[in-house]
Amino acid sequence: MSKITILSEINNKKPFIEDLPKINHKEFDKVIKSRRSVRVFTNDIIPKDIIKKSLDNSLKAPTSSNLQTWEIYWIKSKNIKKKVVEACLSQPAAKTAKELFVFVSRPDHWKRNNQMMLDYLNEKKNPSVSVLKYYNKITKLAYNQGFMNIFGFLKKLYVSFVGLYRVIPREPTSFNDMKVWSQKTTALACQNFMLSMRAYGFDTCPMEGFDSFRLKRILKLPNKAQICMVIGAGKRDPNGVYGKQFRFDNKLFIKEV
Amino acid sequence: MSKITILSEINNKKPFIEDLPKINHKEFDKVIKSRRSVRVFTNDIIPKDIIKKSLDNSLKAPTSSNLQTWEIYWIKSKNIKKKVVEACLSQPAAKTAKELFVFVSRPDHWKRNNQMMLDYLNEKKNPSVSVLKYYNKITKLAYNQGFMNIFGFLKKLYVSFVGLYRVIPREPTSFNDMKVWSQKTTALACQNFMLSMRAYGFDTCPMEGFDSFRLKRILKLPNKAQICMVIGAGKRDPNGVYGKQFRFDNKLFIKEV
Repeated sequence: MSKITILSEINNKKPFIEDLPKINHKEFDKVIKSRRSVRVFTNDIIPKDIIKKSLDNSLKAPTSSNLQTWEIYWIKSKNIKKKVVEACLSQPAAKTAKELFVFVSRPDHWKRNNQMMLDYLNEKKNPSVSVLKYYNKITKLAYNQGFMNIFGFLKKLYVSFVGLYRVIPREPTSFNDMKVWSQKTTALACQNFMLSMRAYGFDTCPMEGFDSFRLKRILKLPNKAQICMVIGAGKRDPNGVYGKQFRFDNKLFIKEV
Repeated sequence: MSKITILSEINNKKPFIEDLPKINHKEFDKVIKSRRSVRVFTNDIIPKDIIKKSLDNSLKAPTSSNLQTWEIYWIKSKNIKKKVVEACLSQPAAKTAKELFVFVSRPDHWKRNNQMMLDYLNEKKNPSVSVLKYYNKITKLAYNQGFMNIFGFLKKLYVSFVGLYRVIPREPTSFNDMKVWSQKTTALACQNFMLSMRAYGFDTCPMEGFDSFRLKRILKLPNKAQICMVIGAGKRDPNGVYGKQFRFDNKLFIKEV
């Protein structure tokens, strides 16, 4: 595989400077601390501008190679909502949710989005040569798995062999790897969404207990699309949180090496 | 599979009420807006209490079935850091990072953590019967895939058959599904971490371009552990952001149905 120039080149021709705002981190900590999985919502509505802002915030999450292989289904139709609730096993977090959002990973969209990135770059006056090369060559090598995964399999062989001698990125070399890749990116967006709703005084519950087959059918999604999470949202009911947040001792997870 | 009582039962015996703080959402929006993938860092140190707070914030993300199948390696040893940078293809975001964190998914830890949940519940005076049942039966059915994935395969057959007639959760029925499951949870923690660093005036870059085989060897991780992301952190260098954030039109991703 060729050298990943976009990763190894410091762009110091004309620095792009963004003003960094002063932030009161206490407000942020409050968001983190008060975010809980809320399983019962009241009947209060969520103002539309708050939903839209949170969806916007959601898509500001980092996304691998900026390929944005995500989708968010905002369930508005009563009829579809009823079906989505059923596909979520009619759990209270879905049933009582004032709004339901289905976050979907679209590993199958990488090629479309890659082409859109190229179109965008080619419209620019002076597109960066290394960025163009990245979307013309590197991403195509990295994310293409070929018919019946044949190219992925060959990449795996190549990578295993070359990897004996030098550092080389290993994944993705299969559609399963592509799922992981796109699901990670979508999960980052989910977390932005949940925190944003909290910052605006509303709550959420991420759900993974659902019938993915039925959900895909309801949303007319192809087989390769992957449901990441269904997120219920609304105003927290006093019964909405089942208990104090419990986490094992951090020492179990944070390893200083 | 038995009925998922924890998901279908509203706990209204003794409501658990948490005070909800008033939050200035403008501060939160600033965090979201100013978070960028920063690829060059200055030599400024990040105060230890900010790192610790951000790691704490990280592990307050929601986690599927509260099984916390995540780990964060905070790379402190110079020698290990050098190796991790190499495994990240020596990209500037790793090379110039003042601190490096490797976020790891541990789908292989679900059983250990499930037992720890049971131990925790059994120590309580009046553990909830439905929660106990959840960790005694439901999670074991859901996450166990058996030797050589035989149980997972049987589950898949069962689920495909029963799913013809009624709603049923489909995944996970393989180790690949377990990877996706644990990686999603870990990605939620990654996003909390990156936002937290930003809220405290520092920046990050999530990296997926790495040699996962070498990284696992460096961190002495078993094969089943999965590297989620390597996150470089530090003070933003004026050259650190390569350009304005670019996202395709939201309409492409947000579907109102």
